[in-house]
Amino acid sequence: MKAAVFRDGDMVVGEVADPVPAPGQALVKTLSCGICGSDLHYAKHARHMVELSKRIPGRTPLDLSRDVVFGHEFCAEILDYGPATERKLKPGTLVCSMPVMPQAQGHRTIGYSNEFPGGYAERMVLAALLLLEVPNGLSAGHAALTEPLAVGIHAVEKADLRPDDQPLVVGCGPVGLSAIVGLRLKGIHPIVAADFSPKRRELATRMGADIVIDPRVESPYAKLVPGKRAVIFECVGVPGLIQQVFEAAPRDSRIVVAGVCMEPDRIEPLFGIVKELSVQFVLGYTPEEFARCLRLLAEGAVDGDALITGKVGLDGVKGAFEELANPERHTKILVEPWR
Amino acid sequence: MKAAVFRDGDMVVGEVADPVPAPGQALVKTLSCGICGSDLHYAKHARHMVELSKRIPGRTPLDLSRDVVFGHEFCAEILDYGPATERKLKPGTLVCSMPVMPQAQGHRTIGYSNEFPGGYAERMVLAALLLLEVPNGLSAGHAALTEPLAVGIHAVEKADLRPDDQPLVVGCGPVGLSAIVGLRLKGIHPIVAADFSPKRRELATRMGADIVIDPRVESPYAKLVPGKRAVIFECVGVPGLIQQVFEAAPRDSRIVVAGVCMEPDRIEPLFGIVKELSVQFVLGYTPEEFARCLRLLAEGAVDGDALITGKVGLDGVKGAFEELANPERHTKILVEPWR
Repeated sequence: MKAAVFRDGDMVVGEVADPVPAPGQALVKTLSCGICGSDLHYAKHARHMVELSKRIPGRTPLDLSRDVVFGHEFCAEILDYGPATERKLKPGTLVCSMPVMPQAQGHRTIGYSNEFPGGYAERMVLAALLLLEVPNGLSAGHAALTEPLAVGIHAVEKADLRPDDQPLVVGCGPVGLSAIVGLRLKGIHPIVAADFSPKRRELATRMGADIVIDPRVESPYAKLVPGKRAVIFECVGVPGLIQQVFEAAPRDSRIVVAGVCMEPDRIEPLFGIVKELSVQFVLGYTPEEFARCLRLLAEGAVDGDALITGKVGLDGVKGAFEELANPERHTKILVEPWR
Repeated sequence: MKAAVFRDGDMVVGEVADPVPAPGQALVKTLSCGICGSDLHYAKHARHMVELSKRIPGRTPLDLSRDVVFGHEFCAEILDYGPATERKLKPGTLVCSMPVMPQAQGHRTIGYSNEFPGGYAERMVLAALLLLEVPNGLSAGHAALTEPLAVGIHAVEKADLRPDDQPLVVGCGPVGLSAIVGLRLKGIHPIVAADFSPKRRELATRMGADIVIDPRVESPYAKLVPGKRAVIFECVGVPGLIQQVFEAAPRDSRIVVAGVCMEPDRIEPLFGIVKELSVQFVLGYTPEEFARCLRLLAEGAVDGDALITGKVGLDGVKGAFEELANPERHTKILVEPWR
């Protein structure tokens, strides 16, 4: 089948083996798959990422001498099932799924695996048990937002928010915007959000932020209601950000690190210590959170159109990777491999 | 009066101005004052500490061109009061106090201030409102342990422990040993503790640790009961320790950073992220915790004798600073300025 393949350090359109569903698996046609910032990072720092994976127990490092097909934010259509697999949903049904493939040796991540191509390919195999039917006639493009929305919703859940907390979202890319949605749905106000990009600040407002700040002009920390516990969502994920929050955060703040910084970072623990800060690192989501996000999208609780800024075929993936560097032009680009 | 003075970057015995109690203050005779690791660090890295203080809002940096008298873990005897001050406790009463002097411009820390000499001096002024009478005929030396005990007890309180948590104390200096006491009093078992020093491992057992590990021989993390949430107390406070815990901690661990690392540190956030670790930085204690620790010592809940490994006069402070580098010989050295 055709796929956008990460091969020899480059993103090319090429042929990869047709996926064959094993028992317990479904064969699906990829309808729509979002490009995630992590894919960009992986493509740029592949060797470093492989070395990092080796140091994390339970991770299976990618073999970069073999093809990798990225794409873990997808909506697909059921084509068929593997042998001896309950055909719970009919072929033709639109489905979403967490990008996880249970294996005897542990889970693999679909889209970050040599064995399981992700959504930048015409077809995938998914775990039949994890398939969720797309409800309410929700479009495949909007359904593909389930995964990135779940990341932000999970961050908000892990924040252990109290009704009188004061939230601040630092960075309004897809993760930050999803966190804003989560905060709005929880009714925790005022939601303060900060981003250098005017376009992203506009989106922050559309997603539900009450006070939106350009950090070049003023400090978002000055907008926090004094006396309330600050809960700061770090949704940028580049070196230096955690220390920046450490220095600016009020005493007793709770910091939720949702930005995925994949490089070593420098902190001065003393700032955390003297202010007794707490830091919750987060990643991914629970199956319940994932399913809830699909329902939220189907119920119209999230303005998906505002987030989708582009659609490309497989031959557009490489260019999309480059374009996503510009936060004014793009938030979420969807890959439609059937184009 | 006579004091061990930090003067021109050196620790010398010298004369400093007699302290005069202002309204709301008591004049006390220092009976016993523990030497804290922070004092050693401050003496060694004074310029760096001053620069750091300038970057932390609400801190008053020390003026190193003027004298500083360290010492914030003290027991003293009331001599007199300032004008218009309620004489609630009689002169002659043994007292402890948090090392805090409320001022119009904010609090000052007794022992880290140019204005308020600490316990390495014959006399101090303390805030009359903060004085706590030493009960049960507890000795001044044991009462001086109140402050370092409170640091560990506070760390345990901030850990938000659940009865089925699995604690691990990394580093069995005074802070780690106090945390072990706190865990024992809470009845959270088994308490795993780790230190390179045989002497400190022995003390860890005496304070209540159930499993005591030499990290050169085996990993303390291998002793954690699987399935329980690990709560790891980082009580070392040197660069590299947080990352070491990040790499070794099980998924969903809670890390309480009680060691005061005063230098920049390097972490790899990705390890925190993939394991969804949470980090609670802690410092100091509440007035209630401080008062409770004095009661605990008076009730014999802590084996103070085991912790006190030396007593010196003012002329012994400089040597004690050097000796404290050896964890085999010393845990807590008390300064008795009246010697």
